[in-house]
Amino acid sequence: MRENTLVTKWRQGIATVNGWCAIPHPVAAEFMAHCGWDSLTIDLQHGLVDYQAAVGMLQAIGTTPTIPLARVPWREAGIVMKLLDAGAMGIICPMINDRHQAEEFVSYCRYAPEGQRSFGPTRALVVHGADYGARANRQILALAMIETAEALDNLDSILATRGLDGVYIGPADLALSMGYTPQLDPTEPAVVREVERIVTTTRKAGLWVGMHCGAPAYAKAMIAKGLNYATLLSDARILTMKAVELVKEMGSLVEGPKSSTY
Amino acid sequence: MRENTLVTKWRQGIATVNGWCAIPHPVAAEFMAHCGWDSLTIDLQHGLVDYQAAVGMLQAIGTTPTIPLARVPWREAGIVMKLLDAGAMGIICPMINDRHQAEEFVSYCRYAPEGQRSFGPTRALVVHGADYGARANRQILALAMIETAEALDNLDSILATRGLDGVYIGPADLALSMGYTPQLDPTEPAVVREVERIVTTTRKAGLWVGMHCGAPAYAKAMIAKGLNYATLLSDARILTMKAVELVKEMGSLVEGPKSSTY
Amino acid sequence: MRENTLVTKWRQGIATVNGWCAIPHPVAAEFMAHCGWDSLTIDLQHGLVDYQAAVGMLQAIGTTPTIPLARVPWREAGIVMKLLDAGAMGIICPMINDRHQAEEFVSYCRYAPEGQRSFGPTRALVVHGADYGARANRQILALAMIETAEALDNLDSILATRGLDGVYIGPADLALSMGYTPQLDPTEPAVVREVERIVTTTRKAGLWVGMHCGAPAYAKAMIAKGLNYATLLSDARILTMKAVELVKEMGSLVEGPKSSTY
Amino acid sequence: MRENTLVTKWRQGIATVNGWCAIPHPVAAEFMAHCGWDSLTIDLQHGLVDYQAAVGMLQAIGTTPTIPLARVPWREAGIVMKLLDAGAMGIICPMINDRHQAEEFVSYCRYAPEGQRSFGPTRALVVHGADYGARANRQILALAMIETAEALDNLDSILATRGLDGVYIGPADLALSMGYTPQLDPTEPAVVREVERIVTTTRKAGLWVGMHCGAPAYAKAMIAKGLNYATLLSDARILTMKAVELVKEMGSLVEGPKSSTY
Amino acid sequence: MRENTLVTKWRQGIATVNGWCAIPHPVAAEFMAHCGWDSLTIDLQHGLVDYQAAVGMLQAIGTTPTIPLARVPWREAGIVMKLLDAGAMGIICPMINDRHQAEEFVSYCRYAPEGQRSFGPTRALVVHGADYGARANRQILALAMIETAEALDNLDSILATRGLDGVYIGPADLALSMGYTPQLDPTEPAVVREVERIVTTTRKAGLWVGMHCGAPAYAKAMIAKGLNYATLLSDARILTMKAVELVKEMGSLVEGPKSSTY
Amino acid sequence: MRENTLVTKWRQGIATVNGWCAIPHPVAAEFMAHCGWDSLTIDLQHGLVDYQAAVGMLQAIGTTPTIPLARVPWREAGIVMKLLDAGAMGIICPMINDRHQAEEFVSYCRYAPEGQRSFGPTRALVVHGADYGARANRQILALAMIETAEALDNLDSILATRGLDGVYIGPADLALSMGYTPQLDPTEPAVVREVERIVTTTRKAGLWVGMHCGAPAYAKAMIAKGLNYATLLSDARILTMKAVELVKEMGSLVEGPKSSTY
Repeated sequence: MRENTLVTKWRQGIATVNGWCAIPHPVAAEFMAHCGWDSLTIDLQHGLVDYQAAVGMLQAIGTTPTIPLARVPWREAGIVMKLLDAGAMGIICPMINDRHQAEEFVSYCRYAPEGQRSFGPTRALVVHGADYGARANRQILALAMIETAEALDNLDSILATRGLDGVYIGPADLALSMGYTPQLDPTEPAVVREVERIVTTTRKAGLWVGMHCGAPAYAKAMIAKGLNYATLLSDARILTMKAVELVKEMGSLVEGPKSSTY
Repeated sequence: MRENTLVTKWRQGIATVNGWCAIPHPVAAEFMAHCGWDSLTIDLQHGLVDYQAAVGMLQAIGTTPTIPLARVPWREAGIVMKLLDAGAMGIICPMINDRHQAEEFVSYCRYAPEGQRSFGPTRALVVHGADYGARANRQILALAMIETAEALDNLDSILATRGLDGVYIGPADLALSMGYTPQLDPTEPAVVREVERIVTTTRKAGLWVGMHCGAPAYAKAMIAKGLNYATLLSDARILTMKAVELVKEMGSLVEGPKSSTY
Repeated sequence: MRENTLVTKWRQGIATVNGWCAIPHPVAAEFMAHCGWDSLTIDLQHGLVDYQAAVGMLQAIGTTPTIPLARVPWREAGIVMKLLDAGAMGIICPMINDRHQAEEFVSYCRYAPEGQRSFGPTRALVVHGADYGARANRQILALAMIETAEALDNLDSILATRGLDGVYIGPADLALSMGYTPQLDPTEPAVVREVERIVTTTRKAGLWVGMHCGAPAYAKAMIAKGLNYATLLSDARILTMKAVELVKEMGSLVEGPKSSTY
Repeated sequence: MRENTLVTKWRQGIATVNGWCAIPHPVAAEFMAHCGWDSLTIDLQHGLVDYQAAVGMLQAIGTTPTIPLARVPWREAGIVMKLLDAGAMGIICPMINDRHQAEEFVSYCRYAPEGQRSFGPTRALVVHGADYGARANRQILALAMIETAEALDNLDSILATRGLDGVYIGPADLALSMGYTPQLDPTEPAVVREVERIVTTTRKAGLWVGMHCGAPAYAKAMIAKGLNYATLLSDARILTMKAVELVKEMGSLVEGPKSSTY
Repeated sequence: MRENTLVTKWRQGIATVNGWCAIPHPVAAEFMAHCGWDSLTIDLQHGLVDYQAAVGMLQAIGTTPTIPLARVPWREAGIVMKLLDAGAMGIICPMINDRHQAEEFVSYCRYAPEGQRSFGPTRALVVHGADYGARANRQILALAMIETAEALDNLDSILATRGLDGVYIGPADLALSMGYTPQLDPTEPAVVREVERIVTTTRKAGLWVGMHCGAPAYAKAMIAKGLNYATLLSDARILTMKAVELVKEMGSLVEGPKSSTY
Repeated sequence: MRENTLVTKWRQGIATVNGWCAIPHPVAAEFMAHCGWDSLTIDLQHGLVDYQAAVGMLQAIGTTPTIPLARVPWREAGIVMKLLDAGAMGIICPMINDRHQAEEFVSYCRYAPEGQRSFGPTRALVVHGADYGARANRQILALAMIETAEALDNLDSILATRGLDGVYIGPADLALSMGYTPQLDPTEPAVVREVERIVTTTRKAGLWVGMHCGAPAYAKAMIAKGLNYATLLSDARILTMKAVELVKEMGSLVEGPKSSTY
């Protein structure tokens, strides 16, 4: 089975950079996949992507060595298993708030006897190798989002979930849940404190920790504090941020300066 | 019928900024449409877009005041008319090399007696207004690409084509056709000279002139020389250019610096 | 954030007319959106629509001032949140039978602290405005379907659910659940009585009430009794009803009358 | 091979009613196919349909005995042959203005030695029968649109084209080409005269004649004058016509009458 | 309503052959549907299919007398009901491990008072007949997968579920759950024993029993032991198995033998 | 730029095996791509594929070392160039009947000064390498189909077309054009003679020659006679051929043998 190179790097103490796909089309995903990200996460939660688009995106990412992950819309068995069968090498699951939810999520990612994932890796077998069935439980990442006040309270027990590989910090929901305005790269001290506590605690528990970031500087700072993988924005945000910047550069123009006349 | 605000601005001596859609999905097009471009061109030639995707993209752009244009794959009647029926407010046609080709192209964009466009503006009627049939010949832009040595030779006669609204300079093909390496924002003196000649000649002939540009600085310089509309890159190029920049900013990291360990 | 004009009208005592989209394509949705409906509901339950089609349909409806709503297949968190992120301005949820289910449903529609909706309004932010996060809990409609005998028993406690904006009466399932044949515009006295009780009780509780209707006359009669919004059939039903009528008008013909011969 | 029942009926002097599909989705096409039309034409010219959508629509129509036809965007070999391979049982080709164009079009519809259609009826073979290759030249209808002043001048020579089965009158383009406003069910005497001349002349030449009509009464009147097949509107027009009528019936309401208040 | 011919055959003691669709496209499904299978199951669990693709596949299968079934991704109400509304004549539900789960699943397939299926058979009504509502509870098959050790323990109580029509044996998951390697056409004695026990017990309980098989010989052997319906592989497996065989036949060649040279 | 390994092998005197994709979906294409074919041809002519599907299929094939080719519907500039921009490494063009047509086709495949291909290799640049522009004229295969009596007459002049890389024999159309029944693996002596003449003449002219074959034995025999690349059937044919065989193996069963009863 194809090696999950994220884990290989993390074990070597190397942090990875994760891209984020919200545009529901394989062409956008393939362009992203050629930009050098260590991994790309197809976002079926807040991205505008559903399963059928995700299959094409997994194929598109599959033209490169980038590791494909997927974020599911919710802790629902069907979609977790379908994405794994389609070749995702890890699942990020939103809103894991307690141990029970963490166990339930992990069980969807693992074949018996470790979990209840149903066997039938249609595409995964073809693209990841004939020994997929035997090795998937070791290579597939189960990553739980920690993004509510409730999850903060239950952090230790969540981290003790057998089979959970790591966590993913959602700073926007975390802030909201703590009573603050949603924000990437949080500056609110209370949120900052909790984010750092999640990083420290997760690493101490022997698990991997990632986070959704808004800028390289912030991501680097967090990596210095222990983060293993950092997401930078999303394809949609990158596209519009740069496009707006370009239009603004043309700007005085847009507002009216005359072109030369004849 | 909806007013073609590009012409309105050009008549006022205001140059416009055109975005370019190569990603074949309405979601990408809609994000682009909210970035402030005066117009967006759906590229059915070198973009990865075909007609069915273009219909969705025209709908997506239709949620904003941005004027939708389309570039067709070739001087073929079917696709020109289908895109106009679907609501495109102008067509950019590649490789117009002589007067005959220019006339043929224009005829596809105009209802009788000015041309041979077939009547049946299914979506255009609904979204642009009940008087579409009566006013389309005035509001729809027919824009011919000048991008070969042959077209340079025939420039005057092309510009004299009745019903042609303007031209669009394709610097890459132009350079190639003149024996140079394809390049956005050309620096090769011979190419620069011809580009400037197209701008000057077109404006003198009373037509509008646009060009595919790679950077705001170049676009502004060309506008100062008479350009009416400037395209900046494409959604695909903007996305990957910025994504690569972000990944590189994380760079030293990607090559290996250790994250903190516990 | 874009104003939810349905609420504005209802507050002024004006009833609204809702169209219903069962054909899973943005082109059909856009044609519907230009017909004058106050709102259009994309039906992901009995319509043949899923999420990816719905995104395109939301874009298509977004070319007009018509308010886009969506009916979800079931009381499942993932799809409710995905549709809101994609720009739906209200959710109709089938089969809300008791207070617990109503609370669960409402929680999916509201950001913390009012609910558990996860933050990431990818498209909604772009098309509805930068203050979407701050205002969505007020502008998004959470509408529970009352369509079973059990729901009738629990009507008062359902209506008392904090954050629930209104209900939607499903006459077919209601009849079925009460032991009668499914029917639009019910005539069975027991069903009629319960429908009217739902309208009266809901309005008294200070919530909005709508219903799936089969004909304008019935819809008007219900509005006179307090209904705030009335759906008329669906695109599929309107299309086939009128098409069958046209074919029948040709009818004697279809069965055989001779065309003139030479 | 499946029998083309249109021809069977026409030979018996029975006129047929043709539906028209402009909405590019199999679900809409299937609903239409269950409405009793003798044939359905997938419109790849002014409809918002392209080839990939048409394949699905052909499958959808294939669930019923309705005969599937297609109108191509233009007299282009590729799309004519692709639609036949996909199972269309006849092609309506726009803008046939002279004998040469008619011959060219017919040649695309016929296998050698009668034409230049390439052999490879991938879907047609499966759904129409193993003898498709041997019988297609007899069962496939080649129908040329007569819709310009030029075509009127060349009518006799067009009708004499070997292998042409019939014509289809496009009243909107015909009127436009003659200098009048495009109109379904023409009332302008000069246009009426020419339409009737096409019907009479075509039937005298031993070919079949059809026309795009706007209402049953007009269609019946034309059938009485010799028309063999009449189209009524399109799915898009039927849907919006009836939807607007329903909304208007609710109308006074939409403008403001109060609903009852509590 | 269309008759479910599977049941008719089973009642006559005739076993049926079921094809399996994992390729998410109506064209593949239609080709399969013309191969003579008694039924085809669209696999939304391990197949790469989601709902929107399934609708098109149901249409494609609908061009033939083959009975369309669907396997859902999980025991989730929304997708079960959507597939039935789209015309599936039976649902195979994975991982039914106890009586409660079986009852829940069956309730999704049945209208009140037998279950909680919501009424709105949009496509099913059109293609299966106007009496669909009245007869669906009798014609729709609810088939529970027995594929875990837990389900084996609860077999009798599962089989006693009111309204359950039959079971479907998943040999791969069953083996995995029992501690063995997943395998089609099991040879492991413990698994063989349990498979045979399921067949015998199910038939004794008066229900129908099917199984996923890998080869005709195995399927026939199981039918001789009481199996009512046998699946053979899937479209994806059939395609790749035969394609690999063909490539291998060319094989020595691929490795290098010279073609003739000039 | 990625090396076109077909040419590499042919230069070494190694014949290659080509698969054929008629099912318009990336999932089917990816499964095919993992079966060991040297190349896969996406058939946009008789396959049910259009451009948008082809883009996804090119991505899917791109997950493997298999060389992607495409057959275009007709000798039309737009689609040839679009497929090359999307990453096809060679184009098979149907119905090349004379030198002029051959030159026209080749010109669409080559950048100036060798041809008129427009510059803008959007996807090709990303997936094949940054030097694509400079090397594409050498790596892209232009393959003309020889499949009519007229082409046989003009064979020498066609083969002398500058820039043409090879030919592809279409035995079905060739037979038809010569007055015989279309047939794969022709047995009609006159057709056999011409096929062998094409192989011999093409190789003598220094070009490559391929053919559509129906069985490995025939393909090997032709390779022995000089064929460089042989296609075997298509995905659709492989799937249905094997599926029918499986169903027939169950056969006596399908016709009625009793399953065991209780």
